[in-house]
Amino acid sequence: MEKTYAIGLDYGTLSARAALVCCQDGEVLATAVKPYPHQVMDETLPDGKTKLGANWALEHPGDYILAMEETVGAVMKGKEALKDSVVGIGIDFTSCTILPVDREGTPLCLKKEYEGRPHAYVKLWKHHAAQPQADRINAVLQERGELEEIRYGGRISSELLLPKVLQILEEDPEIYEKADQILEAGDWLTQTLTGGKRRSGNMAGYKAMWLPESGYPDKSFLRQLDPRLEDLGETKLKGEMALMGEPAGFLTEEWANRLGLPAGIPVAPAIIDSHAGLPGSGVSRQNQMMMVVGTSSVMLALTKKPFARDGVVSGIRGGIVPGYYALESGLAAVGDMLGWFVDQAAPESCAKAAREQGMNLHTYLTGKAEQLKPGQSGLAALDWWNGNKTPFVDGRLSGVLAGCTLGTKPEEIYRALIEATAFGTRRIVDLYEEAGAQIEEIIASGGIAEKNPLFLQIYADVLGKRIRVSATEQTAAVGSAVYASVAAGAAGGGYETLQEAVERMSRIHEKAYEPDPENQKTYQELYELYKELSGLFDPGKNTVLAKLLEIKSR
Amino acid sequence: MEKTYAIGLDYGTLSARAALVCCQDGEVLATAVKPYPHQVMDETLPDGKTKLGANWALEHPGDYILAMEETVGAVMKGKEALKDSVVGIGIDFTSCTILPVDREGTPLCLKKEYEGRPHAYVKLWKHHAAQPQADRINAVLQERGELEEIRYGGRISSELLLPKVLQILEEDPEIYEKADQILEAGDWLTQTLTGGKRRSGNMAGYKAMWLPESGYPDKSFLRQLDPRLEDLGETKLKGEMALMGEPAGFLTEEWANRLGLPAGIPVAPAIIDSHAGLPGSGVSRQNQMMMVVGTSSVMLALTKKPFARDGVVSGIRGGIVPGYYALESGLAAVGDMLGWFVDQAAPESCAKAAREQGMNLHTYLTGKAEQLKPGQSGLAALDWWNGNKTPFVDGRLSGVLAGCTLGTKPEEIYRALIEATAFGTRRIVDLYEEAGAQIEEIIASGGIAEKNPLFLQIYADVLGKRIRVSATEQTAAVGSAVYASVAAGAAGGGYETLQEAVERMSRIHEKAYEPDPENQKTYQELYELYKELSGLFDPGKNTVLAKLLEIKSR
Repeated sequence: MEKTYAIGLDYGTLSARAALVCCQDGEVLATAVKPYPHQVMDETLPDGKTKLGANWALEHPGDYILAMEETVGAVMKGKEALKDSVVGIGIDFTSCTILPVDREGTPLCLKKEYEGRPHAYVKLWKHHAAQPQADRINAVLQERGELEEIRYGGRISSELLLPKVLQILEEDPEIYEKADQILEAGDWLTQTLTGGKRRSGNMAGYKAMWLPESGYPDKSFLRQLDPRLEDLGETKLKGEMALMGEPAGFLTEEWANRLGLPAGIPVAPAIIDSHAGLPGSGVSRQNQMMMVVGTSSVMLALTKKPFARDGVVSGIRGGIVPGYYALESGLAAVGDMLGWFVDQAAPESCAKAAREQGMNLHTYLTGKAEQLKPGQSGLAALDWWNGNKTPFVDGRLSGVLAGCTLGTKPEEIYRALIEATAFGTRRIVDLYEEAGAQIEEIIASGGIAEKNPLFLQIYADVLGKRIRVSATEQTAAVGSAVYASVAAGAAGGGYETLQEAVERMSRIHEKAYEPDPENQKTYQELYELYKELSGLFDPGKNTVLAKLLEIKSR
Repeated sequence: MEKTYAIGLDYGTLSARAALVCCQDGEVLATAVKPYPHQVMDETLPDGKTKLGANWALEHPGDYILAMEETVGAVMKGKEALKDSVVGIGIDFTSCTILPVDREGTPLCLKKEYEGRPHAYVKLWKHHAAQPQADRINAVLQERGELEEIRYGGRISSELLLPKVLQILEEDPEIYEKADQILEAGDWLTQTLTGGKRRSGNMAGYKAMWLPESGYPDKSFLRQLDPRLEDLGETKLKGEMALMGEPAGFLTEEWANRLGLPAGIPVAPAIIDSHAGLPGSGVSRQNQMMMVVGTSSVMLALTKKPFARDGVVSGIRGGIVPGYYALESGLAAVGDMLGWFVDQAAPESCAKAAREQGMNLHTYLTGKAEQLKPGQSGLAALDWWNGNKTPFVDGRLSGVLAGCTLGTKPEEIYRALIEATAFGTRRIVDLYEEAGAQIEEIIASGGIAEKNPLFLQIYADVLGKRIRVSATEQTAAVGSAVYASVAAGAAGGGYETLQEAVERMSRIHEKAYEPDPENQKTYQELYELYKELSGLFDPGKNTVLAKLLEIKSR
């Protein structure tokens, strides 16, 4: 059989990346990356004059088009002979990252008359200025007794779609009115490439409170928020949903020419970037959990039933893997917290010793921490340096270190911080299992997973699960290529099922980190203490941390 | 009037110091210090062969005599003309530091036949190997319903006299039997100098459960501990008590010759070293509190009523100041904790900046911390790096740092640690006031008080009290000289009352640290949070910290 290829496009916060991936063996023939020229705009618009408020975070949609043309051009360069073997395109994108567009799909911010209007631009996922709107939505849901419903998951974050849309409506009603659609940026790209109007069910399900069974939230609820929102689903959010596995549409002649690809090949629906990592890292079965560990961490596991509680949401059936719900949560700080420790709390003596041994401080501290036994430090930490998602869904929580003595050593604190993230992860895994996931193996990826064996061994011991590391380097871009190959189908040179595609296109290292029974026993005791410690700071029972933040914020 | 002089001898853990002090104006004419040649013996006896158990801490009584001869010799050197103007000697000593002696007052360890027997040596105050005995004493008191009695103060520590005596009896009954007396080392010195048999009521009251009204504990209680202890008070602990203000006896001819001092001058009763700091630092009135802040801290305040609860003990009436009870408690770590931070947790960037500015790290961090407002860091700490005395009396407790974020800075932690010690001190001051003390002013002394104005300002703001710093350099040695002058009396060239002597012989700097009303308000809120945080770890309610220690100690 002749080889076929898929293109995966991974749109992150600061840059986009393309990968040209072989559908038969997963070989990544080429990758290319393009930073966004405008980066994140959090102070002014591109005019350099129009000031943005606190917690705003915008992007420029022109950057996305530029990045697509440059990176696809780069990965196809010198491979023009393979052009007709490219069978599909897949795109992942940060989410919820939204923009208003006109009837032709042109972003309003690109039109002369709106270029000075902040609400005409792309609101990035981490645009946090819609917090008042999120607070009001939560209050209305509470009043209606719907806050605990599975579809909402217990609390609406300001990062979701509805608070951002409501902010546009309230603060710049003309932009709201002029928008033919308000779109996820990922959907804007697939609509642009295909000339169609389909949207990503994945993004709508996880970020826009949409369900395959019943669509967007009740009209009565939307009316209660603002009468002008009542028809939101049929107006600004209109468009048929495409679930993962099917095509969102097919590449137009115009864009085939611009990108140097064959016209008519399928474009997969856009998918949230962290979700693309699931097939990209090699997870294809219900007994596997995806764990991406970098500055923060994300965990995804499959289940047959919906679930939403304590910061864990299962999204929609088929949202990531056909036929399954995908449980999602993670830690708000992992690498960031260890980075904080190294920069702000590791003493000069360690920095010197590391230099003398030609190591960076992380490697040095890991080496010292490796010589400690579980529990030997007498320390316990709560890994909340950047708030807590599960189980408390509270960004106001902060980190705690307990058990300090005059003999406490830096490597002991470093290890205690790693252990705290392992216990935080265990807490999530416990909930996943309660939700019906049957996890036997964890597939890890991300910067820390690839670099730090001690970290993975501690996780294996704390979680009591085998851990293997993905051998795919660009898990999100490869995951998008996997979705492209499934959108193509077997007849189109790809695959009928996601599982087949994953097994051919993603790779996992053979080496497995197995739990050590002795360590597992001690860690079980320490995990009970971690839960007890975190129970002391349960924001429903004690508000010391919130009060400290309140005084700090004055 | 001709000037008179008193000699104060201050016996610490590692060295002894003598001061020659003018009774009329407090001028310190000379000081001399002598480290103990044997230091603290915690591994072997002087033979280098006989091994000591875990938590043992012994000293050699010969070192004390050597130190006395050398330091008194040194301060009198070149001042032989003043010899006849020396009107008394006072001695302070660590306590409870005890040794067995024979009928002639010779320490058993100095006798050939016992030199290989660990129990024949001086048990230093921090000899912690009598913990099993302390536990049993507490159990017996509990069983008798006497644990809460004011005379015992809620819990018998292994550092007190009775556990140490019981350990001798149980582990080396022959030494117990051969001992004519078991003496505080301070009493051994005054008995040696005077040829008498009087003991320090101060030490007996604070460390040996002795009361002026009723003497040593009930015979029935002692019998219940061990039938052989029944007559303890009349045998091993026999001897008349001397309270502060009166002489323990008078210098013998022999010792007058050995020391180059006039025979027949009064020797004051030995006093616990930290207690000698009270008159030494200038505290003479009921509205003042003494606060010594060094590696740890000690606070003493006067009251008319006895009190013992939550780690605060008032000892005996007249134990330190005639007519008053003296409330005593303190923090187990202050400078030690800040020292830990600088050594183990201050990053290289701070160390470099400090060096560039030609400062030590404490000075640099203090400068940075000074620019912060109360509450600005969002941090709260529990100052239990070395356990907690008040209110939990639990050495198993350990330090906690809460409120950490990715933005937390080293100087913020440094300030939070200082603040935690101020809150811990406030807790003690609150209890003192509940016990009847009327504190308007705090007289601070010790290394940190003399060096760090930020520290004192934070304390003034947290405590809501004026703080002044003692101008006396050797507060304990000068305090001992003050007691010597009172033992001499007006007729003997000294003073009739302690207050007079303190006002003449001790000095306080004029500069006062006054509470800042704005800071005081914020600190009041933060103090409530400190109490809430410490309540979470109240060992009666939650045992996370104890369990961490248990796992650590396996």
